[in-house]
Amino acid sequence: MTIRTKEDYLDALRSLRPNIYKFGKLIEDVTTDPATKRTVASHASCYEYAQNPDLRKMYTTTSSFTGEPIMRWNSMMQDEGSLLSNMKFKRQNYRHTGTCTGAVCVGWNSQNVMWAVTEEMDKEYGTKYQERLKNWILRAQDLGLTVSGALTDAKGDRSKTPSQQEDPDVNLHVKEIRDDGIVIRGAKVMICGTAAAQEIFLLPGSVYKEVDKDYALSCVVPRDIDGLTIVEARHPSDKRELEETSSVEVPDTGITQGWLLFDDVFVPNERVFMCGENKYTGKIISYFTANYRACIGGCVTGQGDVMIGASILMARANGLSAKTFMNKLVDMSIQNQVTFGMGAGAIALGRDHPSGSFFADPLTAHANKVMVATLPYEVKRLTQEIGGGIVETGCMPSFADFSNPDYGPFLQKCLKAGSCSAESRFKAARLSEWLTIGAGVPGCMHGGGSPDGAKLVVRFTTPMEEYAEFARKIIGIEEEIVENGK
Amino acid sequence: MTIRTKEDYLDALRSLRPNIYKFGKLIEDVTTDPATKRTVASHASCYEYAQNPDLRKMYTTTSSFTGEPIMRWNSMMQDEGSLLSNMKFKRQNYRHTGTCTGAVCVGWNSQNVMWAVTEEMDKEYGTKYQERLKNWILRAQDLGLTVSGALTDAKGDRSKTPSQQEDPDVNLHVKEIRDDGIVIRGAKVMICGTAAAQEIFLLPGSVYKEVDKDYALSCVVPRDIDGLTIVEARHPSDKRELEETSSVEVPDTGITQGWLLFDDVFVPNERVFMCGENKYTGKIISYFTANYRACIGGCVTGQGDVMIGASILMARANGLSAKTFMNKLVDMSIQNQVTFGMGAGAIALGRDHPSGSFFADPLTAHANKVMVATLPYEVKRLTQEIGGGIVETGCMPSFADFSNPDYGPFLQKCLKAGSCSAESRFKAARLSEWLTIGAGVPGCMHGGGSPDGAKLVVRFTTPMEEYAEFARKIIGIEEEIVENGK
Amino acid sequence: MTIRTKEDYLDALRSLRPNIYKFGKLIEDVTTDPATKRTVASHASCYEYAQNPDLRKMYTTTSSFTGEPIMRWNSMMQDEGSLLSNMKFKRQNYRHTGTCTGAVCVGWNSQNVMWAVTEEMDKEYGTKYQERLKNWILRAQDLGLTVSGALTDAKGDRSKTPSQQEDPDVNLHVKEIRDDGIVIRGAKVMICGTAAAQEIFLLPGSVYKEVDKDYALSCVVPRDIDGLTIVEARHPSDKRELEETSSVEVPDTGITQGWLLFDDVFVPNERVFMCGENKYTGKIISYFTANYRACIGGCVTGQGDVMIGASILMARANGLSAKTFMNKLVDMSIQNQVTFGMGAGAIALGRDHPSGSFFADPLTAHANKVMVATLPYEVKRLTQEIGGGIVETGCMPSFADFSNPDYGPFLQKCLKAGSCSAESRFKAARLSEWLTIGAGVPGCMHGGGSPDGAKLVVRFTTPMEEYAEFARKIIGIEEEIVENGK
Amino acid sequence: MTIRTKEDYLDALRSLRPNIYKFGKLIEDVTTDPATKRTVASHASCYEYAQNPDLRKMYTTTSSFTGEPIMRWNSMMQDEGSLLSNMKFKRQNYRHTGTCTGAVCVGWNSQNVMWAVTEEMDKEYGTKYQERLKNWILRAQDLGLTVSGALTDAKGDRSKTPSQQEDPDVNLHVKEIRDDGIVIRGAKVMICGTAAAQEIFLLPGSVYKEVDKDYALSCVVPRDIDGLTIVEARHPSDKRELEETSSVEVPDTGITQGWLLFDDVFVPNERVFMCGENKYTGKIISYFTANYRACIGGCVTGQGDVMIGASILMARANGLSAKTFMNKLVDMSIQNQVTFGMGAGAIALGRDHPSGSFFADPLTAHANKVMVATLPYEVKRLTQEIGGGIVETGCMPSFADFSNPDYGPFLQKCLKAGSCSAESRFKAARLSEWLTIGAGVPGCMHGGGSPDGAKLVVRFTTPMEEYAEFARKIIGIEEEIVENGK
Repeated sequence: MTIRTKEDYLDALRSLRPNIYKFGKLIEDVTTDPATKRTVASHASCYEYAQNPDLRKMYTTTSSFTGEPIMRWNSMMQDEGSLLSNMKFKRQNYRHTGTCTGAVCVGWNSQNVMWAVTEEMDKEYGTKYQERLKNWILRAQDLGLTVSGALTDAKGDRSKTPSQQEDPDVNLHVKEIRDDGIVIRGAKVMICGTAAAQEIFLLPGSVYKEVDKDYALSCVVPRDIDGLTIVEARHPSDKRELEETSSVEVPDTGITQGWLLFDDVFVPNERVFMCGENKYTGKIISYFTANYRACIGGCVTGQGDVMIGASILMARANGLSAKTFMNKLVDMSIQNQVTFGMGAGAIALGRDHPSGSFFADPLTAHANKVMVATLPYEVKRLTQEIGGGIVETGCMPSFADFSNPDYGPFLQKCLKAGSCSAESRFKAARLSEWLTIGAGVPGCMHGGGSPDGAKLVVRFTTPMEEYAEFARKIIGIEEEIVENGK
Repeated sequence: MTIRTKEDYLDALRSLRPNIYKFGKLIEDVTTDPATKRTVASHASCYEYAQNPDLRKMYTTTSSFTGEPIMRWNSMMQDEGSLLSNMKFKRQNYRHTGTCTGAVCVGWNSQNVMWAVTEEMDKEYGTKYQERLKNWILRAQDLGLTVSGALTDAKGDRSKTPSQQEDPDVNLHVKEIRDDGIVIRGAKVMICGTAAAQEIFLLPGSVYKEVDKDYALSCVVPRDIDGLTIVEARHPSDKRELEETSSVEVPDTGITQGWLLFDDVFVPNERVFMCGENKYTGKIISYFTANYRACIGGCVTGQGDVMIGASILMARANGLSAKTFMNKLVDMSIQNQVTFGMGAGAIALGRDHPSGSFFADPLTAHANKVMVATLPYEVKRLTQEIGGGIVETGCMPSFADFSNPDYGPFLQKCLKAGSCSAESRFKAARLSEWLTIGAGVPGCMHGGGSPDGAKLVVRFTTPMEEYAEFARKIIGIEEEIVENGK
Repeated sequence: MTIRTKEDYLDALRSLRPNIYKFGKLIEDVTTDPATKRTVASHASCYEYAQNPDLRKMYTTTSSFTGEPIMRWNSMMQDEGSLLSNMKFKRQNYRHTGTCTGAVCVGWNSQNVMWAVTEEMDKEYGTKYQERLKNWILRAQDLGLTVSGALTDAKGDRSKTPSQQEDPDVNLHVKEIRDDGIVIRGAKVMICGTAAAQEIFLLPGSVYKEVDKDYALSCVVPRDIDGLTIVEARHPSDKRELEETSSVEVPDTGITQGWLLFDDVFVPNERVFMCGENKYTGKIISYFTANYRACIGGCVTGQGDVMIGASILMARANGLSAKTFMNKLVDMSIQNQVTFGMGAGAIALGRDHPSGSFFADPLTAHANKVMVATLPYEVKRLTQEIGGGIVETGCMPSFADFSNPDYGPFLQKCLKAGSCSAESRFKAARLSEWLTIGAGVPGCMHGGGSPDGAKLVVRFTTPMEEYAEFARKIIGIEEEIVENGK
Repeated sequence: MTIRTKEDYLDALRSLRPNIYKFGKLIEDVTTDPATKRTVASHASCYEYAQNPDLRKMYTTTSSFTGEPIMRWNSMMQDEGSLLSNMKFKRQNYRHTGTCTGAVCVGWNSQNVMWAVTEEMDKEYGTKYQERLKNWILRAQDLGLTVSGALTDAKGDRSKTPSQQEDPDVNLHVKEIRDDGIVIRGAKVMICGTAAAQEIFLLPGSVYKEVDKDYALSCVVPRDIDGLTIVEARHPSDKRELEETSSVEVPDTGITQGWLLFDDVFVPNERVFMCGENKYTGKIISYFTANYRACIGGCVTGQGDVMIGASILMARANGLSAKTFMNKLVDMSIQNQVTFGMGAGAIALGRDHPSGSFFADPLTAHANKVMVATLPYEVKRLTQEIGGGIVETGCMPSFADFSNPDYGPFLQKCLKAGSCSAESRFKAARLSEWLTIGAGVPGCMHGGGSPDGAKLVVRFTTPMEEYAEFARKIIGIEEEIVENGK
């Protein structure tokens, strides 16, 4: 087995049935359509890096099953080191590509979560889910598949459970169980990276009771499976991506979010890893969020690093010294490192699962999610502060104006400030704008779940009553101090 | 004299020579071109409100010169009450129109600042600037002119003064003084609201010494004056404004920033209020920033109010109760009120100028500018937190997809969550996105100047050594404690 | 009538019946007892300042009743200017004395609040409360009385109203109504400044319904009235105030909080301004908090000014330049000015009451209270950061050690760092410690009420539904979007 | 070898020569003197816990040299796990004792730092420092010694190096080198925990050049070594510790900071681990701070846990439900966990040293120090917010008043609010006060060095230029963008 090349990957994407839409039109080729080519390009770079002697170590690893070299994102994460590498990989990749690894991030985590949960289910129910999963993983490793993942359902009326909804399709569910597989139906929404993915790993979106067991469902499907329609969502400035002025738009980088509409999709048994075992949906959510929120600082920090870099460029392009803003740059670095360091800490405080999987400490991971939903906003604010009005207020002319033969030269001399060219300042300003208010802004608030959800976990993993007992003992209060109103 | 109507205003704009460009093309009619019609529409509403019995009081006032009814933004601000009304007007207008009064905001302030400075100059130099200004104001009041204002020059190499620049045109300057007027040349950049303005009030962009006296220049020019070319800058999602799906894009509201290229523009003497009196440029900057930064919370707070409203809509459209988020809504209200309250405080602590003008307290006003460059980011963050992933992560499909006959209905049932329709949720999500990461984001960081500049003023208006003396006296230290290294 | 002298004031205090206890012992003379002499000294200074040509204007004003000169704190506040002067007075006084005007602050506000409420009550009930109050004010003005004020009751079980409490005495109430007066009983707790006050103005601690009308009670009592026992509370480092090393403890400044135990106290009718009119308790609370929380930044900002000064001293005494910390000093100044500026803004946005009283804007005032409960903590943090370990960690030796003949000289040479003496550094460090973790820390969190209470007012004075309507109109949603679950 | 008992420890302390002073007086017995008995008691508890089957695992471990059981604080930390245990130990201990392990914390870290540095020095200079150190460690392990540590010198004029100071004694230095040892002289200041320590590990306080090589000095001395005088510093409310009312003061817990005056102290060679090798002082500072600042969240978080507990007690003692404050309690838990999690992350990102030592990642560790100097202030603020005025404003009467036969009963009924007794509320309030503004406040700002120093390390360990290169590559700027002014 050898690591696949960039061309293998692009060919594989091109061979898929077109089933992705945007702006009401079918995207014929994701590798060239302006709406998807950027995210494809950034993932394609990974295959190049996997061949690069300096970067290979980050992008590839060894299969724990076969000992063969594989893409890192197809690997099992069974100890602290491999989970740390997940974080480091995401940070490094952001620095190199300017975007996240959305087409592999959730899929990678899902396969590791399901490794543990299938073992637990197999033990209780005598199922063979783990073996199916292993076979699928071996194939994914062999092919170096990009596998995105999908949890979030459309949900509908939140005061009701899935089976109580007027329309069952607002949550993905098993519609029919056949001998050779299952038929699934419903919607997963706001799913990252499917345009650059070859397959999609499906997990339940919440914890379900017996009555909702049809919604307890996990499987992997090819991105172009029959019956699946994907609609790409918009980004703040995605119409810019359609412009011809490729010389100024941030190139070869970007991410997408899609709405996945499953219209009676048949999934063969060998790709099904949960079907009705609602009791284990809680485990999936709990394992998934622990590791995902531990590592969530990886990409966010990588983006922060690029914001530091962009701010240095802007300071200089504005004709000032980057040193003038050293206090702010250091603050940005500290805020980046908080989310990265806490993630590493959640891993260091994690624990082994009997299946071989490894899970991060929930309290630290969920506290980290709250930081991730807060600190990057301040880093963005500082990027805008350092960059100046030209970055912040929507104050750059279009490239068509910049290069207009009549008034373009006047604009260009207005843009010349430091020792670099007007065009470099133009580009640097666009980068900072893109990172802070354009398509480069990542979904750090709700991606991986909402901070309010994380706070709930913090609440229940903080031993509040135990702390009250410590306090009571320290000050020497002898009576119990009970909750009022009880 | 009567208040002009919306149609008068639109006619006036249509009668101007087309001299505004965007995307490399000349805008023939600002009232209908997608790039400018939104900001024109929001200002046009003001003329309607001026006729509305409920709102008239906010939009109009009485001329201190003639006693006639005038648009408020043409008025003199000569006491605390009128300056407070400036703030209240901006806040109210944002609530009604969803945007700022960019085509009148700086011009209004400029005429009041120059009222004081012309009096001072006339006294020292025997000039007749104030009389010219008065005549111009009378005409502006009579016609209900919208007058934007421009301070920021392109600047060039910031380590050099204007006269040291390689190219003198990176700062606006007097190129020639004729008997009947002056010829000006150079660039003002990132100027708000000129597309909806009839005239533009020009002020010097910085404090100048004798050697740079050609740059000490103030005058008012018609927006379409010969020799002036305006290039509109881009906004994060301005290509959306060109889409046909008017049913979902935020309508009739928006703001623009332009680059003003003056290519030997002749300005007749009666429109010139400063020409070479560099000694008074410091006064202009100091008076301007005091009042502008006192009132800067007006529009920002108005936007915050709309974000509170949008968050309530989103909470409900998501199928949740707005009450769930009451803590966050209250925090948003508090942060809004900090910037509004501090601005009112800067006014309350202000003082009269002998000319009749009134200026806010600089320390409070500049401290407020720092708040304005900080707190709205948190309000936006909370808007995204309450709104959910659908608001934050670029997760809404296009309207073309929403209404696609094949898969549109599936998308629509996925979007239905609360008691309102899928389309209402779609619109509410777009509003929150537009307010936090789209064209609705105001330039609160650098608009009105940078927070670092404001901190410099805070530094020099805080009586640091006096405070050290108070401290020394309180603790009873008898020796002087001097700065080390002196 | 002339302004009283410091000696008049001290004589007046000395002539009161001793009824204040601390450490289990009766304080015979508040002007000399170490537990109370500091707060008495700081208030006594005010009488000196009232004679000082430079400061007189701040400490005195003219009676609106008689036109005679009076101490400012005995004045009516009937317009914006007089309320602003309240704030300015408190800030100035903190700078001069290093502490707050606790013995006059609440009393001053109370008399103004009751001026409005007595007018409303007299109108509804035909009572003569305002006349009684006026007579009392005239006497207070004539004598230049220091009048503290008391609202907070001990409260007891908070899930019950006063009349439901097991023990009625946990709230102050009318026990008996006689022809010539009333007998009151119960406790007011955590009352500031009574040790330096000649009289105490009593207001209801909450809003009461009919069933609790015995608790709707307002009157003024001499501090030494029969039946009243006052117990002084402790401060973090109050035992230092008993030490002989007066040369290093912060002198002549400080504040006290007392527990007021009313054991069947008879109050003659002419001092009673509310007795059972529970309907008006809401007005009292609402007027009181609006003005009190508007002006609450006065003393807090004054303390912040002294912290800036102390930090400059410490930087220099540590052998460094204060300029090194300029960023932090500017941040401190900004945070100070937020609370002062918002207070001034609440006043500027306030309104007249038909009685002549003037009340600040509640939304701004209560938002300000939240700031006051937050920002000073950051200012203290920065004071500790600038001051160094010697300030923060409890790291200064005692003065007995400093001056020990054996090892004192070694300590002293260790303390010499900058150009000032070891003793000056010792004192400067003590000042910063005292301001941030000693007796100089003011009660900015709960003094004047809790921030959670203030947030409730923010909630109900923010027109949330109106904002939702503005948002709905801007984006053009036509259906109503109603709260779910309704 | 067996673990020593509490009595062994107390006997050992009692057998030391009295050489500690406070309030100008010699402390005869540190185990009973009110100024020191609290910190001794908290450390004595550790020996009890070491015998406790539930806690033994935290308090003891196995010697890497002998395989014998030892107190954890005498152990080598040679991998991630042992360094994590350092953090966990400190957190657990704070929860149990209410204070930090100040008498062992720096000594423990120092022995591990010096293990690496002695190996490096021995390699370069052929010295035998590591062997000496090993012998000392073996003895410390055998005796279960408590060993505090000292880095900070008095410093003097900070613009000068040690050898340039007027008085050489403001920094500890080698005065004389004899055949059998060295004579040291000078001062270490603000040293934590010496009162409960048996020995003191001395490290250089800064990085020195050749000219200052006399100050490059490391050794361990018995606490009572001839020539050493220790002066205990004061705490905000340390006079309370002298009061008889032991029933209300926080008992058996506390920490001390001392000034160590070395007056020609002879240290035999076997206790000397560095003497003049200034080149390695940088390594000491760098290794020390990496590990110390990684683990610094241990105690701070433990204190935070106790603040959460105290806040729950206060909420209930005030008659309210702790649930009312759940948002705040969750915020406190998150802020605690940031510092703990980042510390664990710094460890997880650390690396092995050839000597067997293990050092945490500097960037993460120093970023953590900045968090530790910030977040606990907010946790304290919330503790005061939840606790109410009775906690914050110095509003509790003395115990003498509480138990006064005359008015004590009235006070007590005022203090009764929830279902617990007045005395329990009294104690709970004292605990929160002690934790936030009393002797229980730890030195999280400057303990372990200042945040500004940590920011310097962040600055130099953040690869700023590399980030600028990433940014430049992402946006496709081809020219170099150089710093202006170069």
